Amino acid sequence: METTRLEAFSDGVFAIAITLLVISLLDIHTRLAHHWPEYAAFAFSFLTIGVMWVNHHHLMNQFAQADRVFLFLNLMLLMGIVFIPFPTALIGEHIRDGGARGAAIAYGCTGIYLSIFFSALWHYGRTHVLRPDADPKVVSGITRSYVFGMPLYLTGTLIAFGTPVGSAIFYGAIAVFYAVSNTFFGKELVAV
Amino acid sequence: METTRLEAFSDGVFAIAITLLVISLLDIHTRLAHHWPEYAAFAFSFLTIGVMWVNHHHLMNQFAQADRVFLFLNLMLLMGIVFIPFPTALIGEHIRDGGARGAAIAYGCTGIYLSIFFSALWHYGRTHVLRPDADPKVVSGITRSYVFGMPLYLTGTLIAFGTPVGSAIFYGAIAVFYAVSNTFFGKELVAV
Amino acid sequence: METTRLEAFSDGVFAIAITLLVISLLDIHTRLAHHWPEYAAFAFSFLTIGVMWVNHHHLMNQFAQADRVFLFLNLMLLMGIVFIPFPTALIGEHIRDGGARGAAIAYGCTGIYLSIFFSALWHYGRTHVLRPDADPKVVSGITRSYVFGMPLYLTGTLIAFGTPVGSAIFYGAIAVFYAVSNTFFGKELVAV
Amino acid sequence: METTRLEAFSDGVFAIAITLLVISLLDIHTRLAHHWPEYAAFAFSFLTIGVMWVNHHHLMNQFAQADRVFLFLNLMLLMGIVFIPFPTALIGEHIRDGGARGAAIAYGCTGIYLSIFFSALWHYGRTHVLRPDADPKVVSGITRSYVFGMPLYLTGTLIAFGTPVGSAIFYGAIAVFYAVSNTFFGKELVAV
Repeated sequence: METTRLEAFSDGVFAIAITLLVISLLDIHTRLAHHWPEYAAFAFSFLTIGVMWVNHHHLMNQFAQADRVFLFLNLMLLMGIVFIPFPTALIGEHIRDGGARGAAIAYGCTGIYLSIFFSALWHYGRTHVLRPDADPKVVSGITRSYVFGMPLYLTGTLIAFGTPVGSAIFYGAIAVFYAVSNTFFGKELVAV
Repeated sequence: METTRLEAFSDGVFAIAITLLVISLLDIHTRLAHHWPEYAAFAFSFLTIGVMWVNHHHLMNQFAQADRVFLFLNLMLLMGIVFIPFPTALIGEHIRDGGARGAAIAYGCTGIYLSIFFSALWHYGRTHVLRPDADPKVVSGITRSYVFGMPLYLTGTLIAFGTPVGSAIFYGAIAVFYAVSNTFFGKELVAV
Repeated sequence: METTRLEAFSDGVFAIAITLLVISLLDIHTRLAHHWPEYAAFAFSFLTIGVMWVNHHHLMNQFAQADRVFLFLNLMLLMGIVFIPFPTALIGEHIRDGGARGAAIAYGCTGIYLSIFFSALWHYGRTHVLRPDADPKVVSGITRSYVFGMPLYLTGTLIAFGTPVGSAIFYGAIAVFYAVSNTFFGKELVAV
Repeated sequence: METTRLEAFSDGVFAIAITLLVISLLDIHTRLAHHWPEYAAFAFSFLTIGVMWVNHHHLMNQFAQADRVFLFLNLMLLMGIVFIPFPTALIGEHIRDGGARGAAIAYGCTGIYLSIFFSALWHYGRTHVLRPDADPKVVSGITRSYVFGMPLYLTGTLIAFGTPVGSAIFYGAIAVFYAVSNTFFGKELVAV
């Protein structure tokens, strides 16, 4: 398997980014019940990074090798993954004091950034390093699935200008939508 | 081995969560002897995550593959693992000032959450992706072992309402009980 | 493959160092737009560590085994990688208040340190544990590529004494230069 | 190779612990030159964890399998590894204000703890899960090498009661001694 080390490195970055989400919780020192927005932000972002990990693995399975452009695009993608805990923490902290507009816009822009580089990685990989035995149905299924990401996060970002709380709810709904659709409507057995 | 990458990712998350436990210690800047509750919380939680890692690996060994529901359940389990350093830090900090009730309840709820998703992962995996050559004795042994987790953490949570200190001692006893029973009464050689 | 575990460990350290870059962002609690130097420092350092990871992997592919001197040199190299988030955070924080001279010098010295140990690792490995079937063209290509690193970071360090802002721009240009030249002028397919 | 996953998990913990050393540096926000004890503590502890990683790998290579007692002993060892950044940070911070006695004693006790569990892991593994084809010379060499650790750290701890600065220098010397003796007097080629 040729992309082993790239996957291991990417998995390491995913695993650390998903775990860093709890660090902003570690700053909370007072009564627990007051902090439900932080917990909600933690849970939804965990779900989001987890789903992106599943998709990343599904995508990597279609490739035989990686060239340097592919490595670079994957690196740019990982930069967005690593960034997620930052706007997440800001939204959790400021959602109740009315100061979450910037955070909610930043979260949406991170989502847009991630959909751009997920698409770029997939389209570059599909045309340059696709496995000869890749299933055309899986390939066209992945291509179709990348149509939704950017419009969704763009909508969330636009909502954030009007109502940060509304956009936070919208981002949560995106996370649940992806988790549910990946879990129950992506039917194939996957070797992970 | 089909579940390699899932195990590697899960191991990464376990490894990071177990290491993050020391981060709350890194905030301690004064006399060392005063902080024994933080050290105790660190040690017992380290033991707890370590034992869960051993069990997770034992469980994964019984499966041939992972489907998307399995991935989702594993993700939900990992969310609980990553969360452990948070109530641990809170208990360590507040146990002496009488403000640990919320923390002790949160720790217990994390334990209940983890027993639910360990059971769910096992029962789903056993009925959907069990290895054809899995040893029926090992399978029924694992099924039996999951009977205890939830009642124990539920008891700890209920104790926490009355006496947070008592529940902290109870959680420590659970950690030692699992470490000892896993180490000395789970006799088989394991290939890890 | 004999160097598997060394690569896995090194990858872990790279993955964590690259993710730690976001931790200094997690301290930011106020208006987002004010913090663009921190974001720029994050992005350029992410790119830098990412490119070093690609180069490290390319270098490791040429070796058959590792002896203890090789392990030690690799360890010294990783110490520099892990250090990067520290001067990065300092530059991001102090670039606007005129207090970034020390940080910019520290960043340059880290770069010099890294070029010394990248060269040392390569020259030791090439003469002691080179794969018998290593491509002489690749070997001499790598040797040539290590000529530039030290003079570049030395120049940046010297600029830092005069103008910290200038050296920060220079370091950013180095990061972009390496990312572009690695991506578009290192043409071979790589198995990662 | 039967111990793959145990090694991967242990490597993850080593990698994270070694990288966490830089976190205490991330709190430093003022003039760089004042903080040389923190930098020295970082460098020596990095070396220490790095050498322990090399030894851990060397030790694991001698074993065919892991049973549950072995897993438990390895877990106890990792707890000590993860703890290292904590006394390291304390020594770095307090060495100049005369408040480092507790920190220097804590560092020494961590060293004693680590030598106990390195020895326990080795002696248990040697008598229970040794590879049938393990080289008797390597085995007796490892046994001999574990004689020194505990007396050295015990000496450092005793020195700490009299002069914390002296013990910090002594710990640094231990780190350099192990790095040098491992690098230049452990002559065999190792497949890592």
